[in-house]
Amino acid sequence: MTDWSIADHTFMSRAIQIAWQGLYTTEPNPRVGCVLAKDSQMIAEGYHRKAGEGHAEVNALRSAGEQAKGCTAYVTLEPCSHFGKTPPCADALIAAGVTEVVVGMVDPNPRVSGNGIAKLQQAGISVRVGLMESQCRALNPGFIQRMATKMPFVRLKMAASLDGRTAMASGESQWITGPLARQDVQRLRARSSAVISGVSSVISDDASLNIRAAELGLDNAEEVCARQPLRVILDSTGRIPERAKMFGLPGHTLIVSCVDAPAFIADIDSAEWLILPGEQGRIDLHQLLQELARRECNEVLVEAGATLAGAFIEAGLVDELVLYQAMKLLGSSALPMFQLPLDKMSQQKTLTLVDSRMLGDDLRLTLVPGLEK
Amino acid sequence: MTDWSIADHTFMSRAIQIAWQGLYTTEPNPRVGCVLAKDSQMIAEGYHRKAGEGHAEVNALRSAGEQAKGCTAYVTLEPCSHFGKTPPCADALIAAGVTEVVVGMVDPNPRVSGNGIAKLQQAGISVRVGLMESQCRALNPGFIQRMATKMPFVRLKMAASLDGRTAMASGESQWITGPLARQDVQRLRARSSAVISGVSSVISDDASLNIRAAELGLDNAEEVCARQPLRVILDSTGRIPERAKMFGLPGHTLIVSCVDAPAFIADIDSAEWLILPGEQGRIDLHQLLQELARRECNEVLVEAGATLAGAFIEAGLVDELVLYQAMKLLGSSALPMFQLPLDKMSQQKTLTLVDSRMLGDDLRLTLVPGLEK
Repeated sequence: MTDWSIADHTFMSRAIQIAWQGLYTTEPNPRVGCVLAKDSQMIAEGYHRKAGEGHAEVNALRSAGEQAKGCTAYVTLEPCSHFGKTPPCADALIAAGVTEVVVGMVDPNPRVSGNGIAKLQQAGISVRVGLMESQCRALNPGFIQRMATKMPFVRLKMAASLDGRTAMASGESQWITGPLARQDVQRLRARSSAVISGVSSVISDDASLNIRAAELGLDNAEEVCARQPLRVILDSTGRIPERAKMFGLPGHTLIVSCVDAPAFIADIDSAEWLILPGEQGRIDLHQLLQELARRECNEVLVEAGATLAGAFIEAGLVDELVLYQAMKLLGSSALPMFQLPLDKMSQQKTLTLVDSRMLGDDLRLTLVPGLEK
Repeated sequence: MTDWSIADHTFMSRAIQIAWQGLYTTEPNPRVGCVLAKDSQMIAEGYHRKAGEGHAEVNALRSAGEQAKGCTAYVTLEPCSHFGKTPPCADALIAAGVTEVVVGMVDPNPRVSGNGIAKLQQAGISVRVGLMESQCRALNPGFIQRMATKMPFVRLKMAASLDGRTAMASGESQWITGPLARQDVQRLRARSSAVISGVSSVISDDASLNIRAAELGLDNAEEVCARQPLRVILDSTGRIPERAKMFGLPGHTLIVSCVDAPAFIADIDSAEWLILPGEQGRIDLHQLLQELARRECNEVLVEAGATLAGAFIEAGLVDELVLYQAMKLLGSSALPMFQLPLDKMSQQKTLTLVDSRMLGDDLRLTLVPGLEK
């Protein structure tokens, strides 16, 4: 067990804080922050802003210049040891004369995990690992899950009334929640690599499933919107309309089906058709997620109606449920949150609340799967 | 507008704090606290503990003895000016030589409101009114409502999953919430004058609807349980079973029906039958509440299934909803919270969240009717 000083915590906290600035832009890379410090003084800091641009360590080293020599580097994630779009960060740290590296968490990819640390140590650099690890992990739930399991992190978003209803029987649902909750959904989309929805949202609402700068409420909203999350439309029987609004929007649409594509799809540059039949005429959700991981999707947002949301829950594929609760009752004729038929209390799906906060008049609950009791 | 000093707030805060000690025992009287102070020093304090025993002012004066002379009295509720089970407190304050009285709120009974204050002023005592009024009002939602409107304060308690379900389709529901939430329900019962439920809880579960010392988790649990809230069973067609457990428990049961009592009721000393037919073969809930107010019920707790809970909501008779949310999903076959058919978003019942806290793993939301938006 390593002993951590107050200075250690101070510098790693700052590294984590600046890593979050990449929340909406690093995808498919992880969000990483780095602080360089010497004699309990901060010398420089850097974070990874965007895939293809400098990694956190390189940005910090560039800012420090000659002063990097003799520094301790605090990095939220183990420095890379391989050539990707940029040279290995471990080499850069060695070349700059850094004498110690404190690592928040090791590389989550089991095949390369520890290589960056080993390279540093072989160069005579002292390495300590695991400072504020849970906070470092929280930066990258999707990247970590994808590296470790070849599956993306699946976040299911629902907006419902206190009596668990998402819309009137007629389908009328605008608006259950207020503007701050809807802005928050825009931000969930913006941090996601892909947004999954059912074709009925396209047929009924001509849904866009995009992120819109004016609704994000972010300083860098324009830059964030330059990358639109992949729209994934589950359309088992091939009902998507040729004139769907989303085909004309920036970004790409992946239609997942059990049947062949209609002819018009070939003419839509932004659309791709994927056939993934599962049991009982339904799409194989597990295979779909594997495919999205293969395409480097880290975090995936499911925005679906009762049937698809219930299917994800039933299959145990939800890593996090974000529930926007409106302080209202929609009554017993209104539509339920999940198509999820259970018979006995012992079949209940138990969740653990990890965060709750008010967004305007709405309550946002963040939940993770709990132990079945 | 009166200017209040820090000392004023300090003493009234203490008066409010000790008034809460009567939460479970003053019924049908209000919860009242009194502090006597002189030269910014507290001299004595008292609160109303139980109907028939001394009022807050009298208890504080008794504790102060000769020192009461020249004191300022801080009282959460206007001192009474009439003979009830005890002599008027206004007279006692005058006799003791108190020179000033600070009143949190005037008597809520419009017919007597202000008489206590007038009596004090006629005796040459300076009176200031309205210090920390909202906190003083919060002590007695039921008493205030009953005095002002001749209706009790109706609190609807529900326990439900995140998807708004209260039981499986089979009726299985033990337990949705955990022990702390269930203890909290015991305390809601204990502060209530009456508990209203439907006859189906008697038929299906042989419900007790009583308060149980071992489950209250209170120091004075035995004393609290000496007064059992009136059990009010809505039984429109007269189905209550002769051998219902509650007939053998301490306390009284009022069965409210649209039909005549079965013969066995005459033999049960603790039971009373009341006929209150409303429209469509249903009990007239408004008349029922008026009758309970006539019987000096201040706070009434509704513990009911979807039909009765929905009827109270629909009739606009709920003053407060206490919702215990279990962090789980019970699925779409499970039973809904309310039988409350609404067609349009514009008919939604909007609520305002006034308190939220965790009770073990469960989230307790306290809501009041909100403005329809």
